[in-house]
Amino acid sequence: MNLTDNISALFSPKTVAIIGASTHPGKVGHAVVANMLDAGFTGTLFPVNPTTDAILGLPTVKTIDDLPEDIDLAVVVLPVAAVIPAMEALARRKIRAAIVITAGFKEVGEEGASLERRLIEICTTHHIAMVGPNCLGLIGPRDHINASFASGFPQDGSIAFFSQSGALCTAILDWALEENIGFSRFISLGNKAVINEADMLEYLRTDPATSVILGYIENVENGPDFIEKAARVTREKPVIIIKSGTTAAGARAASSHTGAIAGSDTAYTAAFHKTGIIRANDMASLFDLAQAFSTQPLPKGPGLCIVTNSGGPGAMAADATEKSALRVAELSEDTTARLKAFLPPYASLTNPIDIIGDAPAERYRKTLEIVVTDPQVHTVLVLLSPTSSAEIVETAHAIIDVAKTSDKPFFVNFMGGLRIKAGEDVLRGAGIPCSIYPEPLIACIETMHAYHLWRNQPVQDYPTVPHDPAIARRVIDNARANGATEVVEFQAQEILRAYHLPTPRTILAHTAEEAAAAAETIGFPVVLKIASPQISHKSDVGGVKVNLDNASAVKAAFSEVTAQAQRLRPDAHIAGCLIQEMAPKGCKEVIIGFKRDDRLGPLVMFGLGGIYVEILKDIAFRLAPLGRDDAKSIIQEIKTYSLLTGARGEAPVNLQALEDILITMSALALDFPEIIEAEFNPVLVNAEKAMVADVRITLAAP
Amino acid sequence: MNLTDNISALFSPKTVAIIGASTHPGKVGHAVVANMLDAGFTGTLFPVNPTTDAILGLPTVKTIDDLPEDIDLAVVVLPVAAVIPAMEALARRKIRAAIVITAGFKEVGEEGASLERRLIEICTTHHIAMVGPNCLGLIGPRDHINASFASGFPQDGSIAFFSQSGALCTAILDWALEENIGFSRFISLGNKAVINEADMLEYLRTDPATSVILGYIENVENGPDFIEKAARVTREKPVIIIKSGTTAAGARAASSHTGAIAGSDTAYTAAFHKTGIIRANDMASLFDLAQAFSTQPLPKGPGLCIVTNSGGPGAMAADATEKSALRVAELSEDTTARLKAFLPPYASLTNPIDIIGDAPAERYRKTLEIVVTDPQVHTVLVLLSPTSSAEIVETAHAIIDVAKTSDKPFFVNFMGGLRIKAGEDVLRGAGIPCSIYPEPLIACIETMHAYHLWRNQPVQDYPTVPHDPAIARRVIDNARANGATEVVEFQAQEILRAYHLPTPRTILAHTAEEAAAAAETIGFPVVLKIASPQISHKSDVGGVKVNLDNASAVKAAFSEVTAQAQRLRPDAHIAGCLIQEMAPKGCKEVIIGFKRDDRLGPLVMFGLGGIYVEILKDIAFRLAPLGRDDAKSIIQEIKTYSLLTGARGEAPVNLQALEDILITMSALALDFPEIIEAEFNPVLVNAEKAMVADVRITLAAP
Repeated sequence: MNLTDNISALFSPKTVAIIGASTHPGKVGHAVVANMLDAGFTGTLFPVNPTTDAILGLPTVKTIDDLPEDIDLAVVVLPVAAVIPAMEALARRKIRAAIVITAGFKEVGEEGASLERRLIEICTTHHIAMVGPNCLGLIGPRDHINASFASGFPQDGSIAFFSQSGALCTAILDWALEENIGFSRFISLGNKAVINEADMLEYLRTDPATSVILGYIENVENGPDFIEKAARVTREKPVIIIKSGTTAAGARAASSHTGAIAGSDTAYTAAFHKTGIIRANDMASLFDLAQAFSTQPLPKGPGLCIVTNSGGPGAMAADATEKSALRVAELSEDTTARLKAFLPPYASLTNPIDIIGDAPAERYRKTLEIVVTDPQVHTVLVLLSPTSSAEIVETAHAIIDVAKTSDKPFFVNFMGGLRIKAGEDVLRGAGIPCSIYPEPLIACIETMHAYHLWRNQPVQDYPTVPHDPAIARRVIDNARANGATEVVEFQAQEILRAYHLPTPRTILAHTAEEAAAAAETIGFPVVLKIASPQISHKSDVGGVKVNLDNASAVKAAFSEVTAQAQRLRPDAHIAGCLIQEMAPKGCKEVIIGFKRDDRLGPLVMFGLGGIYVEILKDIAFRLAPLGRDDAKSIIQEIKTYSLLTGARGEAPVNLQALEDILITMSALALDFPEIIEAEFNPVLVNAEKAMVADVRITLAAP
Repeated sequence: MNLTDNISALFSPKTVAIIGASTHPGKVGHAVVANMLDAGFTGTLFPVNPTTDAILGLPTVKTIDDLPEDIDLAVVVLPVAAVIPAMEALARRKIRAAIVITAGFKEVGEEGASLERRLIEICTTHHIAMVGPNCLGLIGPRDHINASFASGFPQDGSIAFFSQSGALCTAILDWALEENIGFSRFISLGNKAVINEADMLEYLRTDPATSVILGYIENVENGPDFIEKAARVTREKPVIIIKSGTTAAGARAASSHTGAIAGSDTAYTAAFHKTGIIRANDMASLFDLAQAFSTQPLPKGPGLCIVTNSGGPGAMAADATEKSALRVAELSEDTTARLKAFLPPYASLTNPIDIIGDAPAERYRKTLEIVVTDPQVHTVLVLLSPTSSAEIVETAHAIIDVAKTSDKPFFVNFMGGLRIKAGEDVLRGAGIPCSIYPEPLIACIETMHAYHLWRNQPVQDYPTVPHDPAIARRVIDNARANGATEVVEFQAQEILRAYHLPTPRTILAHTAEEAAAAAETIGFPVVLKIASPQISHKSDVGGVKVNLDNASAVKAAFSEVTAQAQRLRPDAHIAGCLIQEMAPKGCKEVIIGFKRDDRLGPLVMFGLGGIYVEILKDIAFRLAPLGRDDAKSIIQEIKTYSLLTGARGEAPVNLQALEDILITMSALALDFPEIIEAEFNPVLVNAEKAMVADVRITLAAP
């Protein structure tokens, strides 16, 4: 599908046809025409209606076939049954883009889903960039477009917003009208049959009107495409997303209303991590972040300077700062000396700087002028309590004046309500983020600083892993040919070797005698494990014996293990036992695995073996592919990381060997989509080397 | 000090003298007179001023000595140097209560602190209930009192607020004026020289005007008193506190402004847990909780019913609910059937109930009437997105009507800004909490439900522990007499036995031969440990040998351990070695200890031994005394609790034995204030019993 050229027709059309335009106020087909006119659309508008001559003063076109060719955008507000024929007719008129507002598609069940597939087919065939169906429409203040039935038209601004939920569009629009927030683009994506969130990200990336991108999603349509495009855009503009349906109840609610299947929250978290998307946990932080990013420069470091006229609020702001990844900046001696020269004796010169309750605006101004030049100060947070002598509006102006002289971000917390309002209005008018609480501001600064770090880190590359895919392919095909959904250990070992993964020396023994001979070859002590394609949980049948240190012990173990396996699992074909090199001394056990998320692909996991994963759930995740940085950071993310680096006086383990295994696991997952799950458990690692001591590979049902 | 009777004179005085009353607008001594008049004070006001005849129409009294006797309340707004003589004079006139607004006491250093001590002395001697110094004053709308220099007078309401920070008072007052929030009492506590937060809690507990108590504190003055009074009041009224100075930077900021030393956050968290105080983490949640508690009944259970006209916001609310301790209520079949009977076909009947974007107010009303009667529904949350057909104000009225018929709490999330405002105003006017986001409302409901559970749990009693304090006293006195700050193990063992704590059989051996004999007596294998009053970290000198299973091994260990200890610590007196029973098989190691918080007393800790405490910081805390419920809950609180209950197929350990040790540790801590820290590490526990295998007791410097 080559839609990219046509997406611009959605946002900057010269000609717009409204299919189902109506003369009746209250009808959606009327609201769209009225909205386009109210927006001051400068191109040509064609209301299509067979039974009337004019709508709101515009002459109508009777049928789609009467429209001129090459219309940029058609907005479809017909009853659901009429949509497909209309889209076919529009395709014949060679329209470039469409917005299907009409509902009654995928979200209402199979019949609607079938209509939606036909809709996709038409758009694909004719390269129509279609938004919807089941949406509110699209708004672009700068281009004077309001192709929606929303009430209210926002100001022009630099924030773009797209949403899978139309209701959220109406809510945010209503909020923006109250708060005087401007938008560059406002898109209700509806069922995302053709144009989806990834297309939006790609379009908005180069859209000069947009500096900050907001989105609400319940799922993504195409995981890899989304990840690729998202990772590109976040290098240029911040992308802030609310993802709902993160819990079972939320997912149920989300899926019942747009037919979307909400994906695993862990996978989405990993996708946001991978792409540098900023996740807003709620609407409040979405709004706060939108305003902060769209008005303030990024903080170049973690140092926050708090200037306050009262100690209590200063302490609260300092607490919130220290609990974040920011820090209360340590001021230079020069700064302190300059402050001391004019501040009253009881002022606190240590950050938070308390300039005392009687501080007039000029004391704020002088203080800010000094601290903003301190190299340890990367962001300035100004607090004011409405004391009886506080000069609220004058202080707001002083802050604006100093902020103008600096490329450092400013945030303001005037605490209160009635009296501080006028000051807040002045600050907001000048584009300085305000809140009556310090905590949301500090959360914004923390997020902006994290984004600054993300944008400035080098782009990771993904190393190619040496391997022989033909061998792995043969093993997997064999297993599937036999109807297996599990590649058992002694076959999986072949795959590991094909990927050059370090494994213990292993020999398959068919008899007790072969087992003893194998043990001699490997060297005592050895491990013995049952080998059967049907038995994947070996310890459930007592199928593992360790530390066997002589030939007769090996023979006895062979007999015992095979006999017991046969008794407990009479269905299983017992190929024999694996004789395996024992783990070297002083090893830690870790688990490396992956699960495939339906939409987002392989989700690689890492954790320490035993209770750490089982009881403490101390596990980290990354989406494949993993680069070297990902492999390092997934290891560092677990809470028990220090157990690997010698926390208790032991030698640190070979982390690079673990990274290599993680990177290879990711490559294996991407090479073989039929593997739905794999687990190396345990991977043994000491100071010298790592070794995959056991493996399970689960295949999709053939 | 018998202040309780006089506290009421602060809040409901019949006669008020203002010492330092001024004719000059802009002066604090003028503002207080004006505020009292504006508040409509119905008693008698005596402005005291030597140089003028009348202030704001009120005749002045020239000197304090000219005042009548037995005045209820004096408000002191003199320069700091004049405060002490004035208070002495006021004491002679037998005033019952005072508010010292003047600053320049403890918060400015030692000179001020000395003045403050004199102030306390006067008040104590004469039973004067004094608020301040260094405060904003006190407000009580119902009693027409405004003995403060704050600008603005709040409405009458049922919320009381006290604060250690005057600035926070001005901020909250300003917020209340904007939001039309009413207060019963509003108290700026200042330096808390006499009346402190504990006195406030006790007064407000029985104050009929107050239903919800809010407070801002940086520290408490008297820990045990605070805990006792707080635990009593929370059984009757919710107490919501913001505690700042929780981080190093915050504590620095807090202490620099009121001379307060902010205590350990862990100890405060434990104090709030013990007393049922609700901790607000920021001002936003303080405000939200104040409104929720003051307007809505408590939820009787965790079941939340979400009624929405749009899926996306419904999903977000469901997510927030599931992440909380609440649950999305499962509706009864009857409820579902009644909903199905009238809701449109695409409505979602599973909670969250989506009544679809075109829902008029009547559809909301009918739905709410049905769900509110479902016994699984304990709280109702109504969501509305301002769709083009939404009937916003009418829906607000429908919600109010249904809420009136029910004793279940209602919360409303109208998402948006401009259009939803009128609906919010209607709801707020009727005392229904609103927010444009669902999350803060759900957080309030969760907190209210937790408070409901707290208030309905039986009051815990504190078991007395059998012990012989005389023995323990002798050991500790001996150690202190020798100048020791550490009671070493073989002496500490005596204390353990005095408290009937289970300990391994232990014999002190002075020679290798005695050691071998002791081991024979105890039975092999044994543990051998160096015994020296100077060596508390025994393993640092290689002073512990375990698993010695014959006499010659014991003798050799004795010689080796004592020789090495002498070489490494030539300063130490070596008493010999302890010969100790080995731990039984299959034990888990736990750590039980306490540290004494300066203000809040002994903070008992519990955790699993080894990496769990050291690396994972998986530790729980409770303030002494510990009852049986505390002992159970401190054990259950650690993340690795399931390792004690047989998570990995092992036998569960004897939890009651651990509880007994915890309760005894708490008793020991309360019995001996000179013990500043103690640690039983490890305590060994298996399915049968627990045993204190090692102990360290640290004493305050004599």
